[in-house]
Amino acid sequence: MVDIATRVWNHKWKIDPIVRSLIDTDFYKLLMCQSVFRNKPDTQVTFSLINRSTDIKLAELVDEGELREQLDHIRSLSLTRGESTWLRGNTFYGKRQMFTPAFMEWFENLKLPPYQLEKRDGQYELTFEGSWPEVMLWEIPALAVLMELRGRAVLHDMRRFELQVLYARAMTKLWEKVERLRDVPGLRIADFGTRRRHSFLWQDWCVRAMTEGLGEKFVGTSNCLIAKNRDLEAIGTNAHELPMVYAALADSDEDLARAPYDVLSDWHEEHDGNLRIILPDTYGTKGFLDRAPDWLAGWTGIRVDSGDPATAAETAIDWWTSRGEDPTKKMVIFSDGLDTDKIIDLHTQFAGRCRPSFGWGTLLTNDFRGLTPDDRLAPFSLVCKAVSANGRPTVKLSDNPNKAMGPDSEIARYKKVFEVGKQEALEVVV
Amino acid sequence: MVDIATRVWNHKWKIDPIVRSLIDTDFYKLLMCQSVFRNKPDTQVTFSLINRSTDIKLAELVDEGELREQLDHIRSLSLTRGESTWLRGNTFYGKRQMFTPAFMEWFENLKLPPYQLEKRDGQYELTFEGSWPEVMLWEIPALAVLMELRGRAVLHDMRRFELQVLYARAMTKLWEKVERLRDVPGLRIADFGTRRRHSFLWQDWCVRAMTEGLGEKFVGTSNCLIAKNRDLEAIGTNAHELPMVYAALADSDEDLARAPYDVLSDWHEEHDGNLRIILPDTYGTKGFLDRAPDWLAGWTGIRVDSGDPATAAETAIDWWTSRGEDPTKKMVIFSDGLDTDKIIDLHTQFAGRCRPSFGWGTLLTNDFRGLTPDDRLAPFSLVCKAVSANGRPTVKLSDNPNKAMGPDSEIARYKKVFEVGKQEALEVVV
Repeated sequence: MVDIATRVWNHKWKIDPIVRSLIDTDFYKLLMCQSVFRNKPDTQVTFSLINRSTDIKLAELVDEGELREQLDHIRSLSLTRGESTWLRGNTFYGKRQMFTPAFMEWFENLKLPPYQLEKRDGQYELTFEGSWPEVMLWEIPALAVLMELRGRAVLHDMRRFELQVLYARAMTKLWEKVERLRDVPGLRIADFGTRRRHSFLWQDWCVRAMTEGLGEKFVGTSNCLIAKNRDLEAIGTNAHELPMVYAALADSDEDLARAPYDVLSDWHEEHDGNLRIILPDTYGTKGFLDRAPDWLAGWTGIRVDSGDPATAAETAIDWWTSRGEDPTKKMVIFSDGLDTDKIIDLHTQFAGRCRPSFGWGTLLTNDFRGLTPDDRLAPFSLVCKAVSANGRPTVKLSDNPNKAMGPDSEIARYKKVFEVGKQEALEVVV
Repeated sequence: MVDIATRVWNHKWKIDPIVRSLIDTDFYKLLMCQSVFRNKPDTQVTFSLINRSTDIKLAELVDEGELREQLDHIRSLSLTRGESTWLRGNTFYGKRQMFTPAFMEWFENLKLPPYQLEKRDGQYELTFEGSWPEVMLWEIPALAVLMELRGRAVLHDMRRFELQVLYARAMTKLWEKVERLRDVPGLRIADFGTRRRHSFLWQDWCVRAMTEGLGEKFVGTSNCLIAKNRDLEAIGTNAHELPMVYAALADSDEDLARAPYDVLSDWHEEHDGNLRIILPDTYGTKGFLDRAPDWLAGWTGIRVDSGDPATAAETAIDWWTSRGEDPTKKMVIFSDGLDTDKIIDLHTQFAGRCRPSFGWGTLLTNDFRGLTPDDRLAPFSLVCKAVSANGRPTVKLSDNPNKAMGPDSEIARYKKVFEVGKQEALEVVV
């Protein structure tokens, strides 16, 4: 078993790279990448890192040289033989050969494209430009690098046993969550915590603790490398970047209105079963579902990633009922700002009325709140998003205006096209 | 850094012996052994293991085969070259060549004598017979083996992450003690926790945490192997077994009354400075000091190992004052049933009036109270004592009748000879 505190100590001699493999990323990035590789391979996109927690001055905390070193290391990575074998040979969601030979050949030859890095107002401006299937794979490693470098900066001056006790306390904290969750009958929960994890080794520890502590209630991890190393299910479906880029590429308001369904139409051709999960909130959940074609009501479930989660789940249940579907057979995956209380409340509220499931992120893999003076390891809200596609800005509305992105004029246009009215503003935790 | 949880896990494959060296013992055993080797080498003694916590049924918890395996392993040990070099070459208490060439030659050729093991009433009867200098070296390893086998029995059914979280909690618990103690100005504290430690690795962790957390306030460890490995001071002077055996060898009541002073007279010839520490409670502190010769008042300090510690310290201060000594120059070493609160209270009460110092034992190296269901790792009171010398029973009275040992008739005789009146009975914690 890895002694995490010792390894953190060793960071001072730069032994552990933060991202250690091209598959040290979320499974859904690979699924989406294959879809993009097939459907929109020539789209040129720009991804940008955005720190929504503006009080965390990343450029003051994190040394630019160290950041470049980690990013350069990621650019040096390529798929190993064992990783390729696993992607080609493993069963994902019950399906063999999830990844086509053409995609695998492309992936085996991939190195990530260059990055642009500047400092402005105490923040890093980190952007990636190029073809969509390549650039999109920067998202998770870029986030993980910034999250962990910030953590390392805080840990740097701690002494050896202070570090060990810090991790002892963090382990105890996670285990107390596990002990509460294991008493919840019928719970289904997965690790979605790669992007904002404290570190790779810590995420690995958390995943293994969940495996032992929750047994069958722990259904897998979104992290491919950990899924491979620990023989777990790789979990994930699709994300906002698909409708955001499809929407930006639309030539008219009519095309724009249809774009989110075009995404899922492409997905429908490629996947079935538990991979048919709707992410409806990119431009407002309510309107999206009201205007959705009937074939979408046949999909397996919905992922709730913004707004009030109980309201969103009720909206989904009503929608399925209105389309003649049985909601008790449908999966509702909650993945926004979860922690133990919220998970237990939502499970209690929805078990039996639908099939609730949980993608637990930051507060699984990065809950060091209260463990250092001034709470300097508290998680913060960092995202890496597609901001333009073929020269046009992207827009995200979401069910929480605090998560909206894009130029104001475009946000106004999207709100009109998607008939989004007044939304409730909620604090973004992580 | 050793991953303790993993090593405990590995115990299931019997990788770690409990006692791994002949110097994995208290330093004072070696000092006393050399004194006995010089002054009473031919004395035949019997040592017996006594579990004062009769509710802990050791013979039901601990497998006899495993116990024999560990004891046999100890009998296979002999001094390594590096250990011998350290004992011969190191400076102890500021003195070179603490151990004479004659003693070292004897020790280098030593293997521990046989043991006798039987089960009775749910307890093990473990006894050692033979020449005093050999048999006495069984005390610490025998205690450590029983303590740790009981712990291993409890840990055996725990799973991997349960174990890791158990140690995480224990680390946090110790660190919280360290954080409190480091705020106490002028504190002097040593590890005396070998005999009732949770395990060797855990004691080693505790010592290193104290080293980092307390700095100069942590003055060393009684464990020779850890002192050697971690480059710390080896700490300790003498114990009850010297006056107990000397007393048992006395041929008359007059000789008996003189025996405790004969012990210290021999010690006076061998040692000076901080090694001249009186342990006055074997047959009652008050009477011992009242009748003590004047040269003893010139010794450096007193160790308080039973009874109410504040009362004993006051008695010592009064005694020094009555003999024209300056108590503020004298050391008072508290070593009985200490934990953080008691240490801080005693230090606050006596700093400035004498030089208080603390030998922290069981609740430093074995405080797993409250960390397992039913508190099955709570420490218990196990001792290994000289019970006879040249065929005569030994007696200990101590300042707490609950710690008295020996046949009733002999206890009565000793009480008369040493003029011990009514004593206050105190609960024995560990």
